[in-house]
Amino acid sequence: MSSVAYIAVVGPGENATGDAIADATEIGTLIAQRGWITLTGGRRAGVMAAAAAGARSAGGIAIGLLPGSDRSDAAPELSAALPTGLGGARNAVLVTAADAVVACGMNPGTVSEIALALRANKPTVLVKASAAAAEFLSSIATDAPFQVVETPAEALAWVAARMSSAHP
Amino acid sequence: MSSVAYIAVVGPGENATGDAIADATEIGTLIAQRGWITLTGGRRAGVMAAAAAGARSAGGIAIGLLPGSDRSDAAPELSAALPTGLGGARNAVLVTAADAVVACGMNPGTVSEIALALRANKPTVLVKASAAAAEFLSSIATDAPFQVVETPAEALAWVAARMSSAHP
Amino acid sequence: MSSVAYIAVVGPGENATGDAIADATEIGTLIAQRGWITLTGGRRAGVMAAAAAGARSAGGIAIGLLPGSDRSDAAPELSAALPTGLGGARNAVLVTAADAVVACGMNPGTVSEIALALRANKPTVLVKASAAAAEFLSSIATDAPFQVVETPAEALAWVAARMSSAHP
Amino acid sequence: MSSVAYIAVVGPGENATGDAIADATEIGTLIAQRGWITLTGGRRAGVMAAAAAGARSAGGIAIGLLPGSDRSDAAPELSAALPTGLGGARNAVLVTAADAVVACGMNPGTVSEIALALRANKPTVLVKASAAAAEFLSSIATDAPFQVVETPAEALAWVAARMSSAHP
Repeated sequence: MSSVAYIAVVGPGENATGDAIADATEIGTLIAQRGWITLTGGRRAGVMAAAAAGARSAGGIAIGLLPGSDRSDAAPELSAALPTGLGGARNAVLVTAADAVVACGMNPGTVSEIALALRANKPTVLVKASAAAAEFLSSIATDAPFQVVETPAEALAWVAARMSSAHP
Repeated sequence: MSSVAYIAVVGPGENATGDAIADATEIGTLIAQRGWITLTGGRRAGVMAAAAAGARSAGGIAIGLLPGSDRSDAAPELSAALPTGLGGARNAVLVTAADAVVACGMNPGTVSEIALALRANKPTVLVKASAAAAEFLSSIATDAPFQVVETPAEALAWVAARMSSAHP
Repeated sequence: MSSVAYIAVVGPGENATGDAIADATEIGTLIAQRGWITLTGGRRAGVMAAAAAGARSAGGIAIGLLPGSDRSDAAPELSAALPTGLGGARNAVLVTAADAVVACGMNPGTVSEIALALRANKPTVLVKASAAAAEFLSSIATDAPFQVVETPAEALAWVAARMSSAHP
Repeated sequence: MSSVAYIAVVGPGENATGDAIADATEIGTLIAQRGWITLTGGRRAGVMAAAAAGARSAGGIAIGLLPGSDRSDAAPELSAALPTGLGGARNAVLVTAADAVVACGMNPGTVSEIALALRANKPTVLVKASAAAAEFLSSIATDAPFQVVETPAEALAWVAARMSSAHP
């Protein structure tokens, strides 16, 4: 599995915007086209479901880490849905399991995942972030690789450059 | 994913017996032949590695939940290796993610997983357990489905009967 | 805090026997009399509540780590009740937070805590365990200090001897 | 324990500013003066250590939830230091255990705790936050009570008003 990368695609569930859903779908597809694995928060909503759908549509693997203790709200597009029973601590596990984090859209849960990724020095990229998000989050990203981009293709190209340097 | 079951195969790592390794390999294969997903503790040792190898040899999916924060000790046979960073609490997540637990061999970590499965009322089956293990663990399994068997085929048949009744 | 020890007192909640409750109460008192801190699973039931009550009656500190996300079922005798939101993974955190584990009574949750303590090589003592529990659990305690005793006083004396050797 | 509130004081460790340390010390003291319990990330550094010291200097209780598996880096001022072994997931447990969160200073770990608190709809107040932090974090705090203040006294007064309405 030496050349496989695990990319967490994070973002809002029920309140995700159309842009965030479209971007997450394309990002899942781009991850799959590289032969990489898409990780999500697992639920049947918003960015989580879109990233899984994008990955599966391209023949890829998508694994969801659910906050609850059962699969009742799992996205059906997932290759595997894993209930963790950890509640909010599942966000930390999702980040730990990933080599890099891509965020589409923004809410408190998404911010927690971005911040935990920066805390762990994992490459983290935001797609179409607001100016306020870009300014603040870049101000705390003093140690971790961090970028704000406008398109899924830019996000994946940036992540790919980080992965090849991390695994020479 | 309605008919997919997730089966955790648990048991010792470095100190696994030859019997436990042979049984775990066959159990991984039997899980894959049913189109189910094998879950393990993820490490490159003993029952964890054997179950993953058995699943992959039959074209199945094997996912490992590692206790540490990176993939340095992941079993190469896994379809996906997910570091959790949770240490011993990963045992609880592994059980929560599973619909049933099959144990091959016995050590403290294995007992913790069996006990957490019984606590969560998940079907739990031990393969070739000692008389002392069978007597004690059956004495605490007052609410959860629990069985001790001699062969991988018996273990999977027993689990399969529990799965069909759980998901009619 | 160099000479303070943290002792987890574990055992059944609603189904605890009168013996287990009496023993847990006395153990909480003995822990407090040494100036040590009692840790419990936090709920208002059985061994958890009894150990907290015993500790507080002797002027000691008792801290509970609850499985849920609020304090609605916390034992009122606790000095501090900490919801973890982790479900069964809270058992692993309780053991990690403790220097030693004392078990009064037995059910699946209790066994998971004993097993996780043995996995982490923490001194673990059972009070009034059944012959089956003693035989099986001692068989897996190959690396960790492990003992079965009949009285709270014996349990604390055994733990105290382990603590002084661990912190010379 | 009906009128006790648990307040998490969060902020940087080694890189905390003098302002953040002074504020955290005063906040710990103010929490203790109300008879409340101070929760911290437990380490012997920065805001974590300062809040514990402030609480203890006023006769209060300070409990630390450490990311690691032992007490080697625990702040000596704590009433109780609890290793969780959870790594970054400890941030989620710290927030879950608290009724409200007060942040002094800012780094990725702090942001993760603020975001997890907002996700759980817990009252969250920042002391002396930058304009960029105030703008961005208030933009995501659409459901949770959220405030930015300049002094410890303002922070505690704001939290106290939230606590009395939450526990009438």
